[in-house]
Amino acid sequence: MMIMCDIGNTYLHFYDMRRIWKNTPSEINKKVLGNSDIYYISVSAENEKRLLKAHKNCYNIAKIVELNTSYIGLGIDRMAACVGVVDGVIIDAGSAISVDVMDNGVHLGGCIMPGLAGYMRAYAGISSALNKQINFGVDLDRLSLDTQSAMSYGVLKSIALTIGDISEKWQSKKLYFTGGDGKFLAKFFERAIYNEMLIFNGMGICIENALKRREPK
Amino acid sequence: MMIMCDIGNTYLHFYDMRRIWKNTPSEINKKVLGNSDIYYISVSAENEKRLLKAHKNCYNIAKIVELNTSYIGLGIDRMAACVGVVDGVIIDAGSAISVDVMDNGVHLGGCIMPGLAGYMRAYAGISSALNKQINFGVDLDRLSLDTQSAMSYGVLKSIALTIGDISEKWQSKKLYFTGGDGKFLAKFFERAIYNEMLIFNGMGICIENALKRREPK
Repeated sequence: MMIMCDIGNTYLHFYDMRRIWKNTPSEINKKVLGNSDIYYISVSAENEKRLLKAHKNCYNIAKIVELNTSYIGLGIDRMAACVGVVDGVIIDAGSAISVDVMDNGVHLGGCIMPGLAGYMRAYAGISSALNKQINFGVDLDRLSLDTQSAMSYGVLKSIALTIGDISEKWQSKKLYFTGGDGKFLAKFFERAIYNEMLIFNGMGICIENALKRREPK
Repeated sequence: MMIMCDIGNTYLHFYDMRRIWKNTPSEINKKVLGNSDIYYISVSAENEKRLLKAHKNCYNIAKIVELNTSYIGLGIDRMAACVGVVDGVIIDAGSAISVDVMDNGVHLGGCIMPGLAGYMRAYAGISSALNKQINFGVDLDRLSLDTQSAMSYGVLKSIALTIGDISEKWQSKKLYFTGGDGKFLAKFFERAIYNEMLIFNGMGICIENALKRREPK
């Protein structure tokens, strides 16, 4: 059996061609992996080691992930997510929130914000008075009148405005959200599609292309 | 001699009616304080203790800082900054970045974002690949093509858009920036004024008002 794995900074996401699941690095479910071949990409050397320790047949497919871009140092997960989108704005909202623009198969660039959990840690590190959870129901159309709302507004409004500003410049493009917080953020936008498969789709395309290149002509 | 002190989460800011200076909590310059009376406000119980240990005659003036608001739990530093502005958008960019709106002497509400240093810590906590300084010269009019630019864009654009969104709703109001990063952020806006005295101005007004109330009629 073939399994794909996207190794992030917080979780390892797996896909066995039927369903998606995630494990923390310290709790990789070996039983489910069986003796499958795992094709993976990774942005975390540490978490990659954990997978290699937990499972024998793992293959890093970074080399076959190809994207037409002039970006220097683009994360392999962002590359994979973009590979599957010919035209669109791609938002991966996980440990970090990345925004990338694909235009006719060419990656034009992007930006990075902290993930929602990262914002919370940033607030908590400033003052114990700011050690609060995000209120996902906060009203973003009026100024806040308590600390939790004011923080939630600060996080959600600033992220939504930044994505909105980029999407306004590319009005014909759809917004493709993926990642743990992507489903929630997608709600703020009309042209939004949530697709938790985005990175695995891209990995699948890269594998297919690599296999095609190996076929005898 | 009278000295005012604004005790924050990172620094203690002092004002002796001539000049402003700041100390870290572990390096309070006792010599400069002499035997002055210090009138202070504080958002950090820990740093407040440091001041009280370093100097004898300290008076917490929180009780006389009065602001017309329905905000619950507004930080005393934000209250003091707002007291000095009858009409305007007040941005205090320090450990946290607070945005508040004053309308004809009434505080309407606000929001809180992490401070620039808080963003950097958030990025560094996500991945060592994101352990980079902000590039303050990053081009905010085009998508980024490297990691440091993408992070800098994410921070600066999201903050600027959030402040801009609030200021657009209050087009007649000026933007009053204060705090360590206020001078830099002020550059993004036309109606901006940087005033490092904002909190001390407010504290001065509160002291004056309290003294007036004590005068025999």
